[in-house]
Amino acid sequence: MKCPPQKISHIGIAVWDLKKACAWYQEVLGLTLEGMEEVESEQVRVGFLRIGESRIELLEPMSKESAIHKYLVRYGEGIHHVALEVSDIKTRLREVAERGVRLINEEPKPGAHQMNIAFLHPKSTGGVLLELCEARENAE
Amino acid sequence: MKCPPQKISHIGIAVWDLKKACAWYQEVLGLTLEGMEEVESEQVRVGFLRIGESRIELLEPMSKESAIHKYLVRYGEGIHHVALEVSDIKTRLREVAERGVRLINEEPKPGAHQMNIAFLHPKSTGGVLLELCEARENAE
Repeated sequence: MKCPPQKISHIGIAVWDLKKACAWYQEVLGLTLEGMEEVESEQVRVGFLRIGESRIELLEPMSKESAIHKYLVRYGEGIHHVALEVSDIKTRLREVAERGVRLINEEPKPGAHQMNIAFLHPKSTGGVLLELCEARENAE
Repeated sequence: MKCPPQKISHIGIAVWDLKKACAWYQEVLGLTLEGMEEVESEQVRVGFLRIGESRIELLEPMSKESAIHKYLVRYGEGIHHVALEVSDIKTRLREVAERGVRLINEEPKPGAHQMNIAFLHPKSTGGVLLELCEARENAE
């Protein structure tokens, strides 16, 4: 990748109960809840907590069609993905694909907090579901 | 927690082949390898790559006694833990224990890159193996 990711944007954690999980991260760890959001297209309700330059992103399924619901049924609660912030996400996707990485999303799609996002397949990243993301305002 | 974690210190990823994994993160993602280290007490070989204020920490077992070996056999390669940097780790551990969190390590122990570390049990953190860590120079 010519322009490597600049930071960990967030760690996505699958939870059954968003309210309860947000309360835990606030009360036990003392993190600050920045907001909640629904991403209709992903059928997911998201709560995000600031930590340094990154976020903890808690993900609750809104329906059984949500990928997060399927994940929870199969694996239980836990870390779902890691998102790395990049510039020019389209070029970055092309670069990793050229190096043999299988893309879950060939094209970036809208994600939470005004980001365009795309997932790389864990089969080609050593078992880690990696998301690349870019603030939408930066995109063409 | 009175003094919340200041940042994500690192994301720990279990891998079978450290050299291969380090090469992937360097060549495909373009991250910079900061170094490798062996943590004898944990029977683990660690490679760390800088990303913003955080690190990706790749963990290869040095023997079958390593917790990472057991993890790999059970779950395969993937995200093993998330480490949050705190100050005064001993007080932080007492605080989370008082709120009902089960500690894997009651006392901090030496970890990689001159940190004192302690793990919280995933059963009391919503399925996430959380590590708290503090630079050893800061400790009493």
